Amino acid sequence: MASNLSKDKQFLKKEILRKKSFLSVGLDSDIAKIPSFIREEKQNPISYFNKCIIEATEDLCISYKINIAFYESLGIMGWQALEETLKYIPEEQFIIADAKRGDIGNTSTQYAKCFFETYNFDAITLAPYMGADSIKPFLSFENKWSILLALTSNQGAFDFQFIKNEAGVELYKEVLKTSSNWGSDENMMYVVGATKPEHIGQIRKIIPNHFLLVPGVGKQGGSLSKVCEHGLNDDVGLIVNSSRSIIFASQGSDFASAARIKAQELQVEMSDIISKSGKYNS
Amino acid sequence: MASNLSKDKQFLKKEILRKKSFLSVGLDSDIAKIPSFIREEKQNPISYFNKCIIEATEDLCISYKINIAFYESLGIMGWQALEETLKYIPEEQFIIADAKRGDIGNTSTQYAKCFFETYNFDAITLAPYMGADSIKPFLSFENKWSILLALTSNQGAFDFQFIKNEAGVELYKEVLKTSSNWGSDENMMYVVGATKPEHIGQIRKIIPNHFLLVPGVGKQGGSLSKVCEHGLNDDVGLIVNSSRSIIFASQGSDFASAARIKAQELQVEMSDIISKSGKYNS
Repeated sequence: MASNLSKDKQFLKKEILRKKSFLSVGLDSDIAKIPSFIREEKQNPISYFNKCIIEATEDLCISYKINIAFYESLGIMGWQALEETLKYIPEEQFIIADAKRGDIGNTSTQYAKCFFETYNFDAITLAPYMGADSIKPFLSFENKWSILLALTSNQGAFDFQFIKNEAGVELYKEVLKTSSNWGSDENMMYVVGATKPEHIGQIRKIIPNHFLLVPGVGKQGGSLSKVCEHGLNDDVGLIVNSSRSIIFASQGSDFASAARIKAQELQVEMSDIISKSGKYNS
Repeated sequence: MASNLSKDKQFLKKEILRKKSFLSVGLDSDIAKIPSFIREEKQNPISYFNKCIIEATEDLCISYKINIAFYESLGIMGWQALEETLKYIPEEQFIIADAKRGDIGNTSTQYAKCFFETYNFDAITLAPYMGADSIKPFLSFENKWSILLALTSNQGAFDFQFIKNEAGVELYKEVLKTSSNWGSDENMMYVVGATKPEHIGQIRKIIPNHFLLVPGVGKQGGSLSKVCEHGLNDDVGLIVNSSRSIIFASQGSDFASAARIKAQELQVEMSDIISKSGKYNS
């Protein structure tokens, strides 16, 4: 269940080192992709599926990322599944609404109320195109995080995010520079795709102390070790998300244990990276 | 009610000339701002409020724009109000989900299903930052429109949208140029804020034939006549939205007739502009 714990940077670092994991499990629980026997047998297939996935993975991850599209697309039934899912997530988990919202100020305030108050998420992903006044309403909520898109994991990232300005600086870097003044590294994070690890070093020069939410490991092909090589900072500073390759690891009755195996592969790799870095010995 | 009419450009033009209006009424029906007596007396205050506003304005406008944030923020109750509201809207109206969504391909497909299938909206607003593959899933739905943010009405538009590339071209123009190849003027429109009319002439040079959705007249201070001076094309080509200054014109029991008066002021101005242009005589 969502909680009123203050999930600041120190809390996140402590959880990461305690669990030797900076894994986020993405609950992209597409009704068409969950095992068919669950769709046939269960009254609330998505919340049942999520409950099983959460129970099988919660000791291996420090975060669950809920991709709102997969719930919203089902109408009211989807929002009910979302509400039930939130009850199953242990309170120390960092719960992210992957919603990519952003609008003029009075509208952004409504979205912030939705995800931070009505549903008590710890964080929400946001699109930067509309600028400061579309993001600041989210930043005014205490103990909540805004996670801004910077460099996304998809092919379309190349359409606009790499456009260079007159000084030769790419748009995604301008987004980082400008927006990092809107809040602080205690209420903002950035989305940086695992599929573009060669840019993470440059990103760390602009925002050395912010946490990065890194999607794209697994199904999208990103490499965990390359991400960490450039992305780790003194607080670890990374939340690496994997969705489909964990939650849809099997279509059989072993779907939960298969998900656990995939999550554990990543957790073991993360544990090894944390140990070998030698930076986080307490 | 939403319908299966094919609402193509010719349909829109015909409706505009029939009603002598290119007005969209924005149902930004904030529960905290609707008249207090409705909140106290009615079981479903938002859908009751919307029903009254729609009945009072439907002959004066060709479109209703529903700002999803104001419904989503209420949880399941809000989505119920949205479903009821859609039933009250006459089928010839162009119904826009103002949602500003956009995500990687498989996620955008879910959002498209949500708004185009589950709720049968005619159009949805989208954020361009993630590029082609975040928008194309929406364009694959027949008889549906994607309305991409280009130049927004808010102050934050100046943060990134005016960044010039190495050739001196602003980002919002790059968005127009690049994205206009993803679809056509029969399935794409653009959001261009009424608060920046001086740029609409340049926008028309890049996309002469696309419809523009123009927010920001009214509460945000944009001028209708200036927008039309630069924005009208052979199909009229403009849908001008006003939300708060219409729907919250009065807090009394006359809220619906007060909304009608405000909508009519704009419709009369639009009728006059259409006549004076001399372009649309049949």
